[in-house]
Amino acid sequence: MRTQAGESIVEKDRLDPWGTTTVKDYARLQTEFGIEPIGSLLPRFKKPSPHLSRGIDFGHRDLGRIADAVENNNPYAVMSGIKPTGNFHLGTKMTADDMVYFQSLSKKGTVFYCIADVEAYADNGLSFGETSKIALKNVADILALGLDPEKAVVYLQSEEMRVMRLATVFSRGVTNNALKAIYGERPIGLYMSALVQAGDILMPQLPELGGPKPVLVPVGADQDPHIRLTRDLAARFRDEYGFIPPSAVYHRLMLSLTGDQKMSKRSEDSLLTLEDSQAAASRKVLTAFTGGRDTVEEQRRLGGRADICPIYDLYRFHFARDDEHVERVYNECTKGIRLCGECKQEANGLVKEFLTEHRRKRESMMHDAEELLAKSRDYLMSKGKQ
Amino acid sequence: MRTQAGESIVEKDRLDPWGTTTVKDYARLQTEFGIEPIGSLLPRFKKPSPHLSRGIDFGHRDLGRIADAVENNNPYAVMSGIKPTGNFHLGTKMTADDMVYFQSLSKKGTVFYCIADVEAYADNGLSFGETSKIALKNVADILALGLDPEKAVVYLQSEEMRVMRLATVFSRGVTNNALKAIYGERPIGLYMSALVQAGDILMPQLPELGGPKPVLVPVGADQDPHIRLTRDLAARFRDEYGFIPPSAVYHRLMLSLTGDQKMSKRSEDSLLTLEDSQAAASRKVLTAFTGGRDTVEEQRRLGGRADICPIYDLYRFHFARDDEHVERVYNECTKGIRLCGECKQEANGLVKEFLTEHRRKRESMMHDAEELLAKSRDYLMSKGKQ
Repeated sequence: MRTQAGESIVEKDRLDPWGTTTVKDYARLQTEFGIEPIGSLLPRFKKPSPHLSRGIDFGHRDLGRIADAVENNNPYAVMSGIKPTGNFHLGTKMTADDMVYFQSLSKKGTVFYCIADVEAYADNGLSFGETSKIALKNVADILALGLDPEKAVVYLQSEEMRVMRLATVFSRGVTNNALKAIYGERPIGLYMSALVQAGDILMPQLPELGGPKPVLVPVGADQDPHIRLTRDLAARFRDEYGFIPPSAVYHRLMLSLTGDQKMSKRSEDSLLTLEDSQAAASRKVLTAFTGGRDTVEEQRRLGGRADICPIYDLYRFHFARDDEHVERVYNECTKGIRLCGECKQEANGLVKEFLTEHRRKRESMMHDAEELLAKSRDYLMSKGKQ
Repeated sequence: MRTQAGESIVEKDRLDPWGTTTVKDYARLQTEFGIEPIGSLLPRFKKPSPHLSRGIDFGHRDLGRIADAVENNNPYAVMSGIKPTGNFHLGTKMTADDMVYFQSLSKKGTVFYCIADVEAYADNGLSFGETSKIALKNVADILALGLDPEKAVVYLQSEEMRVMRLATVFSRGVTNNALKAIYGERPIGLYMSALVQAGDILMPQLPELGGPKPVLVPVGADQDPHIRLTRDLAARFRDEYGFIPPSAVYHRLMLSLTGDQKMSKRSEDSLLTLEDSQAAASRKVLTAFTGGRDTVEEQRRLGGRADICPIYDLYRFHFARDDEHVERVYNECTKGIRLCGECKQEANGLVKEFLTEHRRKRESMMHDAEELLAKSRDYLMSKGKQ
């Protein structure tokens, strides 16, 4: 990947899973990194999720393996995780929605969910006392979003030596050059974090957890480097473990409410979280950047720019009642029928409704969350180590 | 560290904990790396170990802290570990002897001993089933060498998330340049191994294990890079953990029986192990390289070269009956009174006697080894995580 003048363009063409990436051209991810379009696979998912039907999940690697497993009634896993730092925001919700959907496709779909408390400790200085409270709430969040606890294993990174063991093994099998090619020159702490994530993704294939199986990782487009590293490692250690390269499904990144970059945990106003008070959420929505024009007259004439509008993203990614609703908002906006003020008001109502309902559900799920954590712990402890 | 011509001499002046190092000039370790001579500290150890009285422990960092703790009846720890790959060889015995001695100085001296089964798995492909058997025997070995089980905590790396947690924290606090300065450009697996060892060394200072205290690490001279890294990390994380920089005592490396490099696990004949059959041990001793001269006449006239003789090392490091015995062998050799044949025969007898006695003791200690492992496990599990 060098320009004709010999100047490296690798740096800016590299996806950065730790940075604030804006992906401007999803098509290029396909040509440059080999992420496949969902296209021809779509008919295999009979009841497509909103992410699939609305093109939010825009690409994949080996998603066909999951479709195969569903169709043939074979076991598969869906793997994801969260760093329990307190913010379950709308980006996290997107991954959770995918997780819930792909788990729901078959009785044989098991979710593995990692609570990365060691990373929260190392990166954010949170004690295990603090993170265990946050984790419980996070688990209640995903239960409220529809996770089936009967087919889920939730674990704390601080209690799962299998992952650390795999990360140690992988550290011996990866070259520094391979890491540099994927991530660029990074501090060792980030490389180590990447190897631990590879351990998380491949753990469901360990013999004591049922052995090799397709594993789907739903991620934002910026997380692809982790997927590539893990697929490389799966291939390198195939003889030893029989690993099947993990599959991935990629969702688009939401536009920031403040109009810049991707939703980042760093800027309070750039995102909605499931913790926001109704007042805070309203303020964020009503003062958000939009794709509107400079004047009403202009907007009536030219239409709004839904494609760059974070408010439109709220409808499309999360809060529209159905696909028809998304389409209607898009058309009304781009044809100049709908103005930003009314559009924000409607979105605000939908957000309010969702937050109220979600919190009610989550509250009622706290006990189930505790049970799921305890049950998972017993399950994993009973499996020993091989 | 550059020559006047500007050419870097760092590479060859760097100690390599993973290679086969021959340290030719122990004095230089003091001037270049800041390892202190034992000298003035010696009188503080009233019954010096053979390692101290014979100059085998040639240097230290902050050994005074341990002398202080002993004199003031304050708690301290002695930390070491073993990769359970099967070979408890004479190099391992040297570390064990130091461990036993420094533990014995006070009722408040606790040994922490790490069985690095994850590394044995990652580096040598040994299953946890295999390593747990080897570990048991290794623990019986150190009990037979005199370890007091009442003041010892032995843990499996595969069960101690505290170490992995510290390694993760440290990976965030160390720069790639700091690692390169200490170890040179290395594969990430070795860097990760180094960070895990730093975790092992600092674990005894965690609050749930009694908090900050002096910790002594007895090592071969070639392991100093790990000590320097860990001392750097202790300083960097002092505010958070209150770490006291670990102390170290350095022993000389034994000469290889085949006359080249240090005892290496790679060359079967270069070392004695506690597993060798009497026949194998005899063969190794009787066919060893020596510091003898080309002819008997020459040796009578010039004397033997004990300083480059691995047979003399056997006496000095392990099997002489007492210090006087070592001195006698040295004098008889260098004055041409003692010839290599008879010297080897005597050494062979001492080795035979030791191996017989050691195995008898070890056999009788297998049950105690099991108990120590179980007791340690309960102790560490009961401490939770903070």
